[in-house]
Amino acid sequence: MKLATLRTASGTVAVRVEADQAIEIAGCTDVGALLAQPDWRTVADTADGPTHPLAAIDDASWAPVVPSPSKIICVGLNYRNHILEMGRVLPEFPTLFSKYPEALIGAFDAIVVPEYASHALDWEAELAIVIGSPARRLDRDAAAAAIAGYSVINDITLRDYQGRTLEWLQGKTFDKTAPFGPVLVTSDEYGVDTEIRAEVDGEVMQRSDTGDLVFDPPTLVSYISHVLTLNPGDVIASGTPGGVGHARKPPRYLAHGSTVVTTIEGIGTLVNHVVVEEGPGGRED
Amino acid sequence: MKLATLRTASGTVAVRVEADQAIEIAGCTDVGALLAQPDWRTVADTADGPTHPLAAIDDASWAPVVPSPSKIICVGLNYRNHILEMGRVLPEFPTLFSKYPEALIGAFDAIVVPEYASHALDWEAELAIVIGSPARRLDRDAAAAAIAGYSVINDITLRDYQGRTLEWLQGKTFDKTAPFGPVLVTSDEYGVDTEIRAEVDGEVMQRSDTGDLVFDPPTLVSYISHVLTLNPGDVIASGTPGGVGHARKPPRYLAHGSTVVTTIEGIGTLVNHVVVEEGPGGRED
Repeated sequence: MKLATLRTASGTVAVRVEADQAIEIAGCTDVGALLAQPDWRTVADTADGPTHPLAAIDDASWAPVVPSPSKIICVGLNYRNHILEMGRVLPEFPTLFSKYPEALIGAFDAIVVPEYASHALDWEAELAIVIGSPARRLDRDAAAAAIAGYSVINDITLRDYQGRTLEWLQGKTFDKTAPFGPVLVTSDEYGVDTEIRAEVDGEVMQRSDTGDLVFDPPTLVSYISHVLTLNPGDVIASGTPGGVGHARKPPRYLAHGSTVVTTIEGIGTLVNHVVVEEGPGGRED
Repeated sequence: MKLATLRTASGTVAVRVEADQAIEIAGCTDVGALLAQPDWRTVADTADGPTHPLAAIDDASWAPVVPSPSKIICVGLNYRNHILEMGRVLPEFPTLFSKYPEALIGAFDAIVVPEYASHALDWEAELAIVIGSPARRLDRDAAAAAIAGYSVINDITLRDYQGRTLEWLQGKTFDKTAPFGPVLVTSDEYGVDTEIRAEVDGEVMQRSDTGDLVFDPPTLVSYISHVLTLNPGDVIASGTPGGVGHARKPPRYLAHGSTVVTTIEGIGTLVNHVVVEEGPGGRED
């Protein structure tokens, strides 16, 4: 089953996405509200609200699949081949940091950054894990059962802000920078072993396989659940493979007008243009 | 004006705290809900709901002053004397990281950690800045005006988890570890230049002055507001002075039964006992 959140004239609504149409799930303003219901699978599976032919849904209607997670936890250094090719040893523990919901944008929205923060804008294609039931101190099997499904996120990063201090947060959570969607594929329908890819202006920059994660989704959920309580709708961005712009020689960054295409086979594709804000809104006071 | 959130038999309620009583603010389930109202100062100032004699409010009734901020942003390395005494240069940018609301506890609640995470538990007395109006790309003066007031927080830290990776998040956000309160003092009544102190089992461990911040509250709010949007009720934990247990030789940590007392003159005092959970709940699966 595929789920999404659509923007409509009367606000957002959760939908079940089928081959050629999206069916509204009554009473659910978004996929987060849906997942907050313990019987969300049945609710979604049996929904028979108004339908929207997929071909008639314009790009601007796709909201972040979960627009306001209570937590977005990002994982660093998690693709095995990339770590080994860099000559590093595999980590004993996952590196965790945060992103806030205001950073999220829809699957086809513009990535918008102010001019003062636009000088080292980089891509990070990632598999997003979405939580489906409360998770606290779960073993690996229970953690696997707490995963609602998977989506695509690009953890767009401002490398200059990321590197201003030891802690990366400020380079990871600028408003309106992280496309997330277009759909959530439930865990019974996605096997976590498919191609993940980022293209910039038509050039493939990252290409790997989600099966290459050092800490796989159940392991991440179990580990994090021993630190804090994960709630339905919470998101874990599971890390990015090699090929980011900052690590290239010379470095490559996104600029006004760049297009980033982020794909995970079996889930979907994000297409995002970069807009650099000029003028008063984009100046640092 | 002083504000707090009290737990009652019918849920939490925001109150205005006066010399000998607390007055309920009708329709506000907590200080966060109050601050979400643009005219919150007037609402709080004119509230005349049921009253509670302060002497009759038991310790367990004090909830975190804002129980569910949309963001808790913590600042590292921000006390001038401590940085200089360590032989470091003053930082150019604030170091920022996150804590999640599940970490918050009331001013007199127990700090509860599972046994597996109890081996390097440390204190960090901090001035908490609470946001009173939306803050996005504000200059320093506008940022000052966006501050509702100040409170006390102890950014209790699990040093072993903090040091597992480069990013500190996992050592900073265990559930039920961060006392926050007991009151918010509005910014017109607190001058940010008073003693801040942490005592452990009666021994003074940290003693400094909130006027010694490298990045003062308006500067922090302005800086952060150029990264993301701060909402009413959001919290900035502004950093801790020298004297933490981890930096002592030999290191000193909290244990089951320890008592931490955290005070900022002119705001209030937190008193928290440490409980280490044994048994299945406290074991790592």
